[in-house]
Amino acid sequence: MAFSLRSLPRAGPFARVSRVRWMSGTGTQTSLPDIDPAKLQIHKTTSPKPIPPSETLKFGHVFTDHMLAISWTQQEGWAAPEIRPYGPLTLDPSSTVFHYAQCLFEGLKAYRDVHGRVTLFRPDMNMARMNRSAHRIALPNFDGAALLDVLKQLIRLDKHWIPQEKGHSLYIRPVLIGTQQTIGISPPESALLYVICSPVGPYYPNGFKPVALHGTTEHVRASPGGTGAYKIGANYAPGVYPQKEAAQLGYVQNLWLYGSEHYLTEVGTMNLFVVFKHEDGSFELVTPPLDGMILPGVTRDSVLSLARSHASGALRLPHLGRLTVTERAVTMPEVREAAQAGRLVEMFGTGTAAIISTIDRIGYDGQDVVIPVEADGMGPVSRSLWTEIVGRQTGAIPSEWSVVVDE
Amino acid sequence: MAFSLRSLPRAGPFARVSRVRWMSGTGTQTSLPDIDPAKLQIHKTTSPKPIPPSETLKFGHVFTDHMLAISWTQQEGWAAPEIRPYGPLTLDPSSTVFHYAQCLFEGLKAYRDVHGRVTLFRPDMNMARMNRSAHRIALPNFDGAALLDVLKQLIRLDKHWIPQEKGHSLYIRPVLIGTQQTIGISPPESALLYVICSPVGPYYPNGFKPVALHGTTEHVRASPGGTGAYKIGANYAPGVYPQKEAAQLGYVQNLWLYGSEHYLTEVGTMNLFVVFKHEDGSFELVTPPLDGMILPGVTRDSVLSLARSHASGALRLPHLGRLTVTERAVTMPEVREAAQAGRLVEMFGTGTAAIISTIDRIGYDGQDVVIPVEADGMGPVSRSLWTEIVGRQTGAIPSEWSVVVDE
Repeated sequence: MAFSLRSLPRAGPFARVSRVRWMSGTGTQTSLPDIDPAKLQIHKTTSPKPIPPSETLKFGHVFTDHMLAISWTQQEGWAAPEIRPYGPLTLDPSSTVFHYAQCLFEGLKAYRDVHGRVTLFRPDMNMARMNRSAHRIALPNFDGAALLDVLKQLIRLDKHWIPQEKGHSLYIRPVLIGTQQTIGISPPESALLYVICSPVGPYYPNGFKPVALHGTTEHVRASPGGTGAYKIGANYAPGVYPQKEAAQLGYVQNLWLYGSEHYLTEVGTMNLFVVFKHEDGSFELVTPPLDGMILPGVTRDSVLSLARSHASGALRLPHLGRLTVTERAVTMPEVREAAQAGRLVEMFGTGTAAIISTIDRIGYDGQDVVIPVEADGMGPVSRSLWTEIVGRQTGAIPSEWSVVVDE
Repeated sequence: MAFSLRSLPRAGPFARVSRVRWMSGTGTQTSLPDIDPAKLQIHKTTSPKPIPPSETLKFGHVFTDHMLAISWTQQEGWAAPEIRPYGPLTLDPSSTVFHYAQCLFEGLKAYRDVHGRVTLFRPDMNMARMNRSAHRIALPNFDGAALLDVLKQLIRLDKHWIPQEKGHSLYIRPVLIGTQQTIGISPPESALLYVICSPVGPYYPNGFKPVALHGTTEHVRASPGGTGAYKIGANYAPGVYPQKEAAQLGYVQNLWLYGSEHYLTEVGTMNLFVVFKHEDGSFELVTPPLDGMILPGVTRDSVLSLARSHASGALRLPHLGRLTVTERAVTMPEVREAAQAGRLVEMFGTGTAAIISTIDRIGYDGQDVVIPVEADGMGPVSRSLWTEIVGRQTGAIPSEWSVVVDE
């Protein structure tokens, strides 16, 4: 039976990932192998590296003894997963990842919790987002539960690399790249998924340090119809030069403002929250909506979820008082006006690396808007949310979000 | 003397590239080595590959015996250029190119011209654009003339790979990638520039074949404040999925429409031209302006330059008649109205691979807009411009644009 490209089902970005795949050009429909944990091959290193002292760790500079690698081809599907000694990739210079940015990644952390267990924090969110990213740039999808299974085995093998100290963790970096060896631009016929792990210290080893932002209007991080909602490499390289420009002006990061209204979108590579105080004394926690320009961050979702539980009375968080939680557009003039009127409570970014990063100043329209920060570098809402999230990550607060990898 | 980041000169995207570099964090200003052709090291292959018959060539599938590689570090500047046997790159899995799309490329062609010489077409344009791309994503700049020098030596070494047949050429692909082995997001402290070469046949071996386009409004290729004007990898991966969608609807490529006005921007990965006929019988050749969303294509510039020479009387091209040449915004409703009124002469894309690619149909707003095409698959303006450009590339028409590599 003839098979027309036109009859392919049109999958939306949140479509369920199917195990059924189509072989291009063959006229047949077939089911190819997905990632299969039962086929995992483990090749242990014969020369383990020395584990550096925790106090010397710099983010993402040191990697553990092993990595996970799973190759894919359009003809054969996903090959057997392999855990092997950490080492270089050997790739043809024509591989599409080098030319067309056919790459995406995830970031999550493994913790040694207060009970001595090894845990992950909401890893299902990373698996789902990784599949959405892959779909958006025509890289292959996979069974997220199967990847998580073999990823846990990697973590167990290298669990002695997880620093024990408070605030430390093992940063897990899954990557998916196109490896087709032709320089035409098309969905790659081959790809490589790999995972590397890096022991990291706390983002703020000496207490919270609020950052100064440059309200950036001459460059955009994302646009309507673009790819800002996906964790693909293409969203990151273009942000490095604007960050250099901000640094030259004396700011730490970009506050990405969009459009002539100067809508707040993200800060650096983090999601963004603003807290307003209303006339009745209640707080409003605001973050930009998932309109296609905003990355659906795991920490963003955790903050929203906890704050809404507090607002509904299902959960009682200290110091939050009466709270409304809204995903809505917020502009820089609104922030400035609230700051001037004393109605701005605080602003902070959220992300896996720092969890919460508070903001004390925004260069905007030729002047600095000063954002309130308390003596410990935080504010009432960020402090309360940070405490709850860290408690759940470290196991001090029992939570379904904490997934045990090793007892 | 203390050196503040604030005192760094702010370079615009078209700023002259200086040989003076700054060492970050050292407080000193120093001049590091640029690319130096005198230091070129040539390691020839001991096992040359068989050269495939020209009729079997598929675009970008086969590569010549040698490649050029030049590494850079922030501490040492550009290392000695090396021509070595074509072979794989060995890169740490933490290299930033795999995570954050720190990659850019160029595309140009070497021709065996009608006099038997090996030539390049306006390669200075590619060197200048490659430096602008590098600056935009915080990769290192270099002396474009020096890169062109060593690139010519690579072409001379592999010149027997240039197919002799009409319409054939050697496609040259320079690439620059970030190779820093840490997963923080910053300007990379190390990078690799390399060049590979692929013998290619004519884009349309059996005569011109006009393409049908999908007027794409739900995805954008570029946006104001974005990176559409740079030839960086990040502009390409996001276009693959929309192209798949267009193919599923029965179209070959995306016509990227921007904004609620549906401004025409580019077609697939080519620049775009529209020809209108005015009431006085004259033609207007229109292309979108370089407003930051449009790649400054070499073929685009050649088409504009030739058409303007014709319009001014400096050059006489056949069949063009009275012509005005404008870089201006053009919307899809304007194109549709002109097509319905019989005032649309033709539409075509331009790029290095196909030179000119004509368009016969645009799916827009639920209907197909039919674009005029003559029996040979071209129109009066595209045919005349294509003939002139190919004449200059093949040496049949003497031109300063043709740069001799080998007599």
